[in-house]
Amino acid sequence: MMLKGFLFSTVEASIKKPGRKDLALIYSEVPATAAAVFTASTVKAAPVLVSREHIASGFAQALIVNSGNANACTGEPGMIVARETARLIAQALDIDTAAVQVCSTGVIGVQMPMERIQTSIPALVDGLTSGTLDDIAQAIMTTDTFPKMEARSGQAAGVSYTVAGIAKGAGMIMPNMATMLSFIITDAAVEPSFLESSFRKAVGCSFNAITVDGDMSTNDTCLIMANGMSKNPIITEGSAEGDSFAVILNDVLLSLAKQIVKDGEGATKFVEIRVGGAKDDADAKRAAMAIANSSLVKTAFFGHDANWGRIFAAVGYSGAEVDQSRLSLLFDDVCMARNGIFTDEDAEARGTEVLKKKEFTVSVDLGIGKGTATVYTTDLTHEYISINADYRS
Amino acid sequence: MMLKGFLFSTVEASIKKPGRKDLALIYSEVPATAAAVFTASTVKAAPVLVSREHIASGFAQALIVNSGNANACTGEPGMIVARETARLIAQALDIDTAAVQVCSTGVIGVQMPMERIQTSIPALVDGLTSGTLDDIAQAIMTTDTFPKMEARSGQAAGVSYTVAGIAKGAGMIMPNMATMLSFIITDAAVEPSFLESSFRKAVGCSFNAITVDGDMSTNDTCLIMANGMSKNPIITEGSAEGDSFAVILNDVLLSLAKQIVKDGEGATKFVEIRVGGAKDDADAKRAAMAIANSSLVKTAFFGHDANWGRIFAAVGYSGAEVDQSRLSLLFDDVCMARNGIFTDEDAEARGTEVLKKKEFTVSVDLGIGKGTATVYTTDLTHEYISINADYRS
Repeated sequence: MMLKGFLFSTVEASIKKPGRKDLALIYSEVPATAAAVFTASTVKAAPVLVSREHIASGFAQALIVNSGNANACTGEPGMIVARETARLIAQALDIDTAAVQVCSTGVIGVQMPMERIQTSIPALVDGLTSGTLDDIAQAIMTTDTFPKMEARSGQAAGVSYTVAGIAKGAGMIMPNMATMLSFIITDAAVEPSFLESSFRKAVGCSFNAITVDGDMSTNDTCLIMANGMSKNPIITEGSAEGDSFAVILNDVLLSLAKQIVKDGEGATKFVEIRVGGAKDDADAKRAAMAIANSSLVKTAFFGHDANWGRIFAAVGYSGAEVDQSRLSLLFDDVCMARNGIFTDEDAEARGTEVLKKKEFTVSVDLGIGKGTATVYTTDLTHEYISINADYRS
Repeated sequence: MMLKGFLFSTVEASIKKPGRKDLALIYSEVPATAAAVFTASTVKAAPVLVSREHIASGFAQALIVNSGNANACTGEPGMIVARETARLIAQALDIDTAAVQVCSTGVIGVQMPMERIQTSIPALVDGLTSGTLDDIAQAIMTTDTFPKMEARSGQAAGVSYTVAGIAKGAGMIMPNMATMLSFIITDAAVEPSFLESSFRKAVGCSFNAITVDGDMSTNDTCLIMANGMSKNPIITEGSAEGDSFAVILNDVLLSLAKQIVKDGEGATKFVEIRVGGAKDDADAKRAAMAIANSSLVKTAFFGHDANWGRIFAAVGYSGAEVDQSRLSLLFDDVCMARNGIFTDEDAEARGTEVLKKKEFTVSVDLGIGKGTATVYTTDLTHEYISINADYRS
């Protein structure tokens, strides 16, 4: 994997405690076309507010990210830190302040130790090398048990380019340790409006289609930078190259999203929830998310209890249009219920076997329309309780 | 407690297994003014569909309820059982079929053994006595660890009456064992439209203001019967007697609702969530319910982690209108955060002490309006996981 024109650096800033790299920088040698999706929460961390302002330009050249402190619920002092961080990085790199994206993840409600960031910036900038994203993926980990990375190569008019991404997150939100972050970089040249639209679409069926605990963070950020250094003819919407780029982008984001689910706090199962036959796609997603977030469904997965009734019950309160006499449900290829009622005792035993697997699919057909959605979730386990009840370091 | 004109009976029908009373009957000697609130789920159990039809008359004279089988997701055969049950009870009591309410709670998706109900009906009707509701409260228990009862007396123009109620439920839904059920009976004479409106209002701030796991059942039913046998002058809306009746009704329902939360599956804490300063009451309830249902908040309660950031994060994604710079939060009387930011380290220690209590209050002020809401919830514990992962009998 080779990403032209991107440099990387990590340092130990001891933001929460010493002993690990907790401050990272991604730098593009030229301004990159950029797009971002931020948390939909009305309680937004200071770096989210600052980065949202900056991305309005449509460009970014540097991303500074720290773990150990989310700089969320920190009021005006937190805003000053986020702005000052961007200004210092811009100064050190001799770029525009608005070209700097700032991201934070970690404990919420604690003021960010600005002096530790300030004193670390020279070493951070000096350390920039054309290495890989690996160190950055490590530096942004919090309760994650493994770093999350993905890269795919593509071609546009015979010119090769790479799309690479990293992510962190193990609950959908952990305001102590915080947040889902994902950074995608590519050396492809992509038309700005198409970069934005294809990115938003890819986020919709990847990061917005996963749930570990149904919570959402104050800091969630998903960012893409395309610096065009592979010198390919610019990729536009509605072209073969555009279609190909969209597929590659989808693949990278979906892979990262699935890695987050697989690292879900305390999870022992990875479950794909497919809903079809809905009134429309939005209704299908409503039903799929209700299933994916139901504590009763998720504990049944943990106990490999082929309890399809809990799934129908979740569909029932999802808000999706439902005719209960048309519902059907499969665990992998085992049909548990058809026309709203149980198939047979044999299905019970076979369904239980499916649920004993580490990965399986739940398919629900609402039987009334053509809407579909796929989401990814985990089981709910004793370990999740332990991580979130006993942990605050 | 004396309820004039009501008779009670329970029998062992061995609907799921022998060894306990699992079929119960409440009978009023005269047709009672009645109102009911059923599950908002689009997946409704057969008895809910039948009872909803019957209650349209505004009257009920008998209620038959079983545990051990929810008769939900049972299709047309389930509907036939529910209808036949009502018809047989009506025949045995010589009343109108539409005056019979049918309720079920228990395993979902399994056909109801009609013959066991049919053969039990003669003994059930023969056994009617002017006892108390206690046996009924026992008969409808599933994962409940204690029966839930409440009674209050009132007076209307010098005539005493009683409002008594029972409830069952320990998760908001347990499709195996199912459901929140509550039955309120009173010998007061109450104007039908006022009975309906005061009952709906009381349900709104009691059963619709509690959450254990955020799930909703296919069978949830809350029913009131007022038979007027105390011979009081009819209680009407907008009178002193009406106001008094509404308070008594609220007290009974809220007590039952709180008992359900206290018996929440695996719960070790009872938490009152008060939200004020919201744009309106609906917004306040949205914020309160987001807090009450957040797995991260509930695990923090379990671990007595004074993690106010998780609560602000839940408010942030609740959909309520929020200005994060105006948020404040207290654990009991300890102010953890004001104007969106942390008060001081001293609060942290004192807040942790509050969370070590078995019962405490979380007060959030959104600081933008006059909307308020209070809801009740539990913590999320290892025991909840065990009950719901390992249990299906």
